[in-house]
Amino acid sequence: MQRISLEPGKHAYSMSKYYTPIATVEPGETFMVETQDGPDGTIKSESDKPSEKLNFLHANPETGPIFIKGAEPGDTLVVEIKDIQPLIEYAVTFTVKGFGGLVGNSYTRLLNPPLEERVKLVRIKNGVVYWNDKIFFPYKPFYGCIGTAPVQQAIDCMSPGNHGGNMDCPHCGVGNNVYLPVRVPGAYLFLGDVMATQGQGELCGTCGEHPAVGTVRVDLIKGKSIEWPRVESDTHIMCIGSAKPMEDAARIAYYELVQWMASEFGFDPIEAYMVLSHIGECNIANMVDTLYSMVARCPKKYLVAK
Amino acid sequence: MQRISLEPGKHAYSMSKYYTPIATVEPGETFMVETQDGPDGTIKSESDKPSEKLNFLHANPETGPIFIKGAEPGDTLVVEIKDIQPLIEYAVTFTVKGFGGLVGNSYTRLLNPPLEERVKLVRIKNGVVYWNDKIFFPYKPFYGCIGTAPVQQAIDCMSPGNHGGNMDCPHCGVGNNVYLPVRVPGAYLFLGDVMATQGQGELCGTCGEHPAVGTVRVDLIKGKSIEWPRVESDTHIMCIGSAKPMEDAARIAYYELVQWMASEFGFDPIEAYMVLSHIGECNIANMVDTLYSMVARCPKKYLVAK
Amino acid sequence: MQRISLEPGKHAYSMSKYYTPIATVEPGETFMVETQDGPDGTIKSESDKPSEKLNFLHANPETGPIFIKGAEPGDTLVVEIKDIQPLIEYAVTFTVKGFGGLVGNSYTRLLNPPLEERVKLVRIKNGVVYWNDKIFFPYKPFYGCIGTAPVQQAIDCMSPGNHGGNMDCPHCGVGNNVYLPVRVPGAYLFLGDVMATQGQGELCGTCGEHPAVGTVRVDLIKGKSIEWPRVESDTHIMCIGSAKPMEDAARIAYYELVQWMASEFGFDPIEAYMVLSHIGECNIANMVDTLYSMVARCPKKYLVAK
Amino acid sequence: MQRISLEPGKHAYSMSKYYTPIATVEPGETFMVETQDGPDGTIKSESDKPSEKLNFLHANPETGPIFIKGAEPGDTLVVEIKDIQPLIEYAVTFTVKGFGGLVGNSYTRLLNPPLEERVKLVRIKNGVVYWNDKIFFPYKPFYGCIGTAPVQQAIDCMSPGNHGGNMDCPHCGVGNNVYLPVRVPGAYLFLGDVMATQGQGELCGTCGEHPAVGTVRVDLIKGKSIEWPRVESDTHIMCIGSAKPMEDAARIAYYELVQWMASEFGFDPIEAYMVLSHIGECNIANMVDTLYSMVARCPKKYLVAK
Repeated sequence: MQRISLEPGKHAYSMSKYYTPIATVEPGETFMVETQDGPDGTIKSESDKPSEKLNFLHANPETGPIFIKGAEPGDTLVVEIKDIQPLIEYAVTFTVKGFGGLVGNSYTRLLNPPLEERVKLVRIKNGVVYWNDKIFFPYKPFYGCIGTAPVQQAIDCMSPGNHGGNMDCPHCGVGNNVYLPVRVPGAYLFLGDVMATQGQGELCGTCGEHPAVGTVRVDLIKGKSIEWPRVESDTHIMCIGSAKPMEDAARIAYYELVQWMASEFGFDPIEAYMVLSHIGECNIANMVDTLYSMVARCPKKYLVAK
Repeated sequence: MQRISLEPGKHAYSMSKYYTPIATVEPGETFMVETQDGPDGTIKSESDKPSEKLNFLHANPETGPIFIKGAEPGDTLVVEIKDIQPLIEYAVTFTVKGFGGLVGNSYTRLLNPPLEERVKLVRIKNGVVYWNDKIFFPYKPFYGCIGTAPVQQAIDCMSPGNHGGNMDCPHCGVGNNVYLPVRVPGAYLFLGDVMATQGQGELCGTCGEHPAVGTVRVDLIKGKSIEWPRVESDTHIMCIGSAKPMEDAARIAYYELVQWMASEFGFDPIEAYMVLSHIGECNIANMVDTLYSMVARCPKKYLVAK
Repeated sequence: MQRISLEPGKHAYSMSKYYTPIATVEPGETFMVETQDGPDGTIKSESDKPSEKLNFLHANPETGPIFIKGAEPGDTLVVEIKDIQPLIEYAVTFTVKGFGGLVGNSYTRLLNPPLEERVKLVRIKNGVVYWNDKIFFPYKPFYGCIGTAPVQQAIDCMSPGNHGGNMDCPHCGVGNNVYLPVRVPGAYLFLGDVMATQGQGELCGTCGEHPAVGTVRVDLIKGKSIEWPRVESDTHIMCIGSAKPMEDAARIAYYELVQWMASEFGFDPIEAYMVLSHIGECNIANMVDTLYSMVARCPKKYLVAK
Repeated sequence: MQRISLEPGKHAYSMSKYYTPIATVEPGETFMVETQDGPDGTIKSESDKPSEKLNFLHANPETGPIFIKGAEPGDTLVVEIKDIQPLIEYAVTFTVKGFGGLVGNSYTRLLNPPLEERVKLVRIKNGVVYWNDKIFFPYKPFYGCIGTAPVQQAIDCMSPGNHGGNMDCPHCGVGNNVYLPVRVPGAYLFLGDVMATQGQGELCGTCGEHPAVGTVRVDLIKGKSIEWPRVESDTHIMCIGSAKPMEDAARIAYYELVQWMASEFGFDPIEAYMVLSHIGECNIANMVDTLYSMVARCPKKYLVAK
């Protein structure tokens, strides 16, 4: 099995066609891929001061671009996430000046003094993430960043968008299929920012960041184009919208879900809209990045032929 | 057991101290309460045109105010929702011009033509809500509107706020405790807008609206004041924030959750903020009203003494 | 000329029909009206700490309701502001914890520490407002709060809305006509919160607050209803929208302006929309209150019959 | 004088370092520069249907990058706009599906049917822009797009940002100095999207679009870095913020203005904040693009040494 490894100085710091592919995979191929942690290895100790260590331009270094053979604009790339394993035994969660869900930041630009910075190392052991001896969480790793190259933009790795990117959506984790638009020949897949687990919003801005190795299978749906990333699990279909204000992210996510239900499951769009009023699910993926991400879901059991 | 019944012409159309209480209950008392449906009984047939039938000033008619003996400003009112039963065998879901999660409205004021209006009657039978023969949902009723009187405002029943109101949060349903601020003597509890079930957002603006009878127990926590409504279930503590843009509703909900974890469960606020980054849950309650409502939750299992 | 004076304890702290009118005026009548300052007289010295002195529930005390004889729901109330004079020789501008355009507040709820509080007394003399000896501004007084009673709500005086209210729009000043919707018999006019001058946004949250006496003429346009407040000067027609996020306030203001151009000046709505793209003006009135207010304007010279 | 001409197929469709410079100028040099119109020459007749003609990926084609000799990251680029002249005798204003200030769009994603599309050719003659025989405006041309290359991103030409870009700010017009951050060696200046005049917001999404030739002088302020674009006129200093929601754009603009007043004019930041409450100006530049732009201004007469 091909293993795409981490080479120092070889990361991508934006998702774009302007990087040279670091590997090529075939549709249907399963491969392994190593990823660096979100803070790019800069935060290693609880006594580190994040604002002095972090380089925001190098946040969320990506492994990629990975060239998908035969991918053409207008296709959909399927990324099946089969496994993710930590490469070290701990992960890092921290607060840093001007970043986070409950502080002023470079967009919500305020005169208030900054919140205290703090670093926490959390141990990962036997599938458990230890905040301390009493508080621990299941290890449920996922890609905070997953996306393809836009037609002509180079989008920094702090930003989510309709190419995917830094959506910080825990549904992009083990067992699920992520669908991404192909906008350039070869698709140019980027992966990074694995987290050990994450709540809805990634509230403090970081969450169990660690280098990891994933096992991923890619495939193509030829001639089918999607506007925004989609996810499928055993139980749900899901659409992720990224925008500000947050209601626009929610509108995109639910609008896309209505379209999906209409185009593939036989719903009239207004009926889909009304059915989702009863059973649609929609929570925050991230409330800390340059755009907020919302994920809207429909349980598959309601997608019954009419 | 006291049963507070529906008397025609006796509804409250805002939450305020300017209405005369229609009933008095004691702390610790369990009582029954009837409520009218959200559209005030105006939509009865799939051939009705909602924009011609509905009076938005009379939307979400409330049963109340219910005077809680001994409630004083600065207390917290506990509303334990023990049961809700439908008073008729069907409920109504509809779209109406200028209202809904995926259309322009009186605030997001646009020049686009309106979306088609449509009415759907859904049958409620044996705990199941039938969209049609193939699509049906569990009957999981809750109060779309639940709140107390503000100090001096009269807030219309289309609006949620820090008094509760039209939050459209399914967690305000059977089995849960809702905590509301007491801001006037007697608290002045209002209940209404029962829905048969609801997704996250009440996407099309309405959802299984029907008259109902609930069984509710109230109690007081003397001398403890809360800023925003809270909910407790067997498994979670939850805070509901209502604001626009949606990120402000999320900020309020998570901020209040941090305060709750700090004041009652021994967390340092920054630690609570960082822990919630891992396991906080936050989804849309409503994305259709005058303010959006978001509910943030922490599983109780993480609220362990340090 | 009738003079409506300030009587201690007689202010209104919300705009609503639940107050008893304090005076009655005839359509066409010119009268004088005294108003208290926005902080309700609580901030008198540069050593005051605003968060300890201010009672937000009593912010922006209003003189009113003033009953307008013959006003019926569906009419429009015209308020011609002929003059405003200060009642004392200084005004007060201050910052207070959790309030202001560049700080976290009770809606944009953040964990950052608060900004320093500061009080500045500015001298008003001979039509000039002295920040200090080098920085001084023309005295251009206006009503920060001006509105009528809603149908059934009582809206606190920190809030603007489609009833007017705390719009903090400097165009509601001397020489202009303010048009307000009449929603209850007698209209119930409220006036308050005079400021000595104000920039676009009332950035720090307060601005030259002082008690004042105004000379105002009211009139009615029978049978013409408006949705949102409008203003007319010698040179412009203007619509004020109040909402969050700020783009919704701008959408309302411009949408109403399009309707005004269409209904009274013969424009096709899409043509009005396109013409405003060239010459529409739209700035912030307030960016500090519970809703933001935006004012959209069209120079009268472009309102030529087609 | 160097004249940078329009060569078919040579436009830039994003602002980035990934394009090869098309010309080099010296600090202090005055040069002429031709620019294509915003719709890339696709809309030429009032019977064109914009959604069928326009390629959004090619919207706002830029002339550039222009390499500024000696410019280094950390410098500020000064662009003095001395003159702009139309290259043809008419300009085009139109509405197009899913774009504009009062319609649903690809971010505020709604199910409403689209607004009618319409194209208007406006004649430019002797410094006047003729909507028709009765409605005409002064020709006040400016660059809708003006910016430099980001460190690593390629930002499409529909987007404004802290690099400048598609701010649609009429203050970037004749007689003013625009200050832009230098983030890559040579700065990489891009210019385009000249409009014949524009209101505050570019309400319908387009406004007197036409090819033009400008006369521009560039200079460098070595070793002074700015975070966001700034503008200086004879009478005002101005900062432009671009973000969503609109209040975040306003916060950025005013925050930057406070910093400018503090760093160069001797104000304490809180005093600047309070003074701007009295005399700050802040209006919409654009309310139609991927981010909204707001411009905050302080009259120079208040920038007196203390």
